[in-house]
Amino acid sequence: MKPKLEDVANLANVSKTTVSRVLNNRGYLSQQTKDKVENAMKQLNYQPNSAARQLYNQKTNIIGLLFPTVSNPFFGELIHQLETKLFEQGYYVIVGNSINNPDKEAHYMNQLLSNQVDGLIVGTHNIGIEEYNHLDLPIVAIDRIMNSDIPTVRSDNYNGGVQITQRLINSGIKKIIHTNGPVTINTPANLRQQAYEDVMSSHQLTPITYTIDFSLDFDSKLQLFKNIFKEHPDVEGIFASNDTDAIQIYNLALDLGYKVPETLKIIGYDGTAMIQSLMPNLTTVIQPIDDITTTAIQLLEQRMNNEQTNTEYVLPISIHQGTTG
Amino acid sequence: MKPKLEDVANLANVSKTTVSRVLNNRGYLSQQTKDKVENAMKQLNYQPNSAARQLYNQKTNIIGLLFPTVSNPFFGELIHQLETKLFEQGYYVIVGNSINNPDKEAHYMNQLLSNQVDGLIVGTHNIGIEEYNHLDLPIVAIDRIMNSDIPTVRSDNYNGGVQITQRLINSGIKKIIHTNGPVTINTPANLRQQAYEDVMSSHQLTPITYTIDFSLDFDSKLQLFKNIFKEHPDVEGIFASNDTDAIQIYNLALDLGYKVPETLKIIGYDGTAMIQSLMPNLTTVIQPIDDITTTAIQLLEQRMNNEQTNTEYVLPISIHQGTTG
Repeated sequence: MKPKLEDVANLANVSKTTVSRVLNNRGYLSQQTKDKVENAMKQLNYQPNSAARQLYNQKTNIIGLLFPTVSNPFFGELIHQLETKLFEQGYYVIVGNSINNPDKEAHYMNQLLSNQVDGLIVGTHNIGIEEYNHLDLPIVAIDRIMNSDIPTVRSDNYNGGVQITQRLINSGIKKIIHTNGPVTINTPANLRQQAYEDVMSSHQLTPITYTIDFSLDFDSKLQLFKNIFKEHPDVEGIFASNDTDAIQIYNLALDLGYKVPETLKIIGYDGTAMIQSLMPNLTTVIQPIDDITTTAIQLLEQRMNNEQTNTEYVLPISIHQGTTG
Repeated sequence: MKPKLEDVANLANVSKTTVSRVLNNRGYLSQQTKDKVENAMKQLNYQPNSAARQLYNQKTNIIGLLFPTVSNPFFGELIHQLETKLFEQGYYVIVGNSINNPDKEAHYMNQLLSNQVDGLIVGTHNIGIEEYNHLDLPIVAIDRIMNSDIPTVRSDNYNGGVQITQRLINSGIKKIIHTNGPVTINTPANLRQQAYEDVMSSHQLTPITYTIDFSLDFDSKLQLFKNIFKEHPDVEGIFASNDTDAIQIYNLALDLGYKVPETLKIIGYDGTAMIQSLMPNLTTVIQPIDDITTTAIQLLEQRMNNEQTNTEYVLPISIHQGTTG
């Protein structure tokens, strides 16, 4: 006869609720209790089924998504794909946005966590690692470094930065400027800047990075881009850390009389379907949003089933060859 | 064991009611009291749940937003502005997306309604009017016709359609094609098509409307746009019902050898900040997203305070003069 959840509880000398909580990774559990229950499961060769799981557990079939903003195409497409794919697998999604506001993120965490979601996919970065350490919930991060217990899915930002910078240098230009978000934010996207600086230095070229706060509106960003051309009118190449920045710089450069790519090369980053459709001539790095979202969901399901996962999943980027650089 | 509201009250040396008031940000509270309670919560890693909340107060300070998708710039900016403005007024937001799927919308309604939100702002249109009639919740609709009890905020779609069509005709062209979403959806955006057809007919011109399902991906849309040029190579003007469609048509037209605006004029609709920044040369109708979101929030607050409101708020559009038409 197949062992039941009750048998596991009896052997481990705990309540059925405790077994259920171990199964579903819910609520506070001491390592000792977890070990006892897991040993009993092993001894009995207990195979939890989803019905048993449902019976004792408060599964809501809702996944929380916590991202900085929906108003940028990269996050827009990430959220759209996560939402669509999770729905196909029986999950609904609620989305919180918390751009540059730790209090907001903390509040969303608490709201989303009040017994409402089965798991979280997080692309924000405001809250300190400490707070996430205390969460009793399966979490997967996208493009953000959280802690060693939360797996991160990201694309190969360093390689993207290397390829773009190398490409610009190979075309024979020397004065290449990089725009990026503030490095104070602990995101793997900083590796693009690191790669740019490494490659520039290895060619005895001086790296010049402008920090463009991601949360600024388009008009404020435009003012900052104008400064780049004012301070470096002899710029020959610009590697922008996202496509909307790259296109704003492109439009501004044309207004200022630069010829792209003849006198100025511009390369973007992200390669969303929207931007590829709206400006196919922009040369850019394509982040594999499809793979990123599929991997993140697989990982979350593994975490929800208490399976082990690796800590970091790095997916390959590709280059879209346009005419701008 | 999970800490309870009572534990927070004991540690902070205040009443449970006071903890609840801090949680719900209700009534007068000294900074000292707030600090005491918040420190106790932090120390205990207390996660308020909706039950505890409900016990003392039904207000959650959460507003639900239900929109078709975040992957279109118009909805992206609407949601972003609603979220930012609601936050400034002390509300948090959870977002559900339910493009073209009535079951999804129904489920989101139920989830969002399970004592979690104080009100809803709705930009979807799947569910029948009947279902919304039964909701015991303040609701405001944006750009959607719901029922006589739910106020709608929208921009003047008919006027936008008239101005664009009139403008194209005034430039001396006759073969003008319109692209729009399916009219089976009960949205005021259909008034753009109505206006286009009225103005064309009043000039003894034949209206030709192509239905482009809003939820298609960019590649599928591109195939439909190719059909337009195949079936009507002599087209002189295209009035697209949103900016991303307009830009895809623009890129395709250039590939096919049309000169814009010399041999083909293209005008879009929506005028988001993103598209204005990325393609400032696109002539388009600007929907007043700032006014729409402010008005919707004011209306929702009036509804939450049981105040009377009008049924429909129509806000003026404006034209952005680019070079495409």
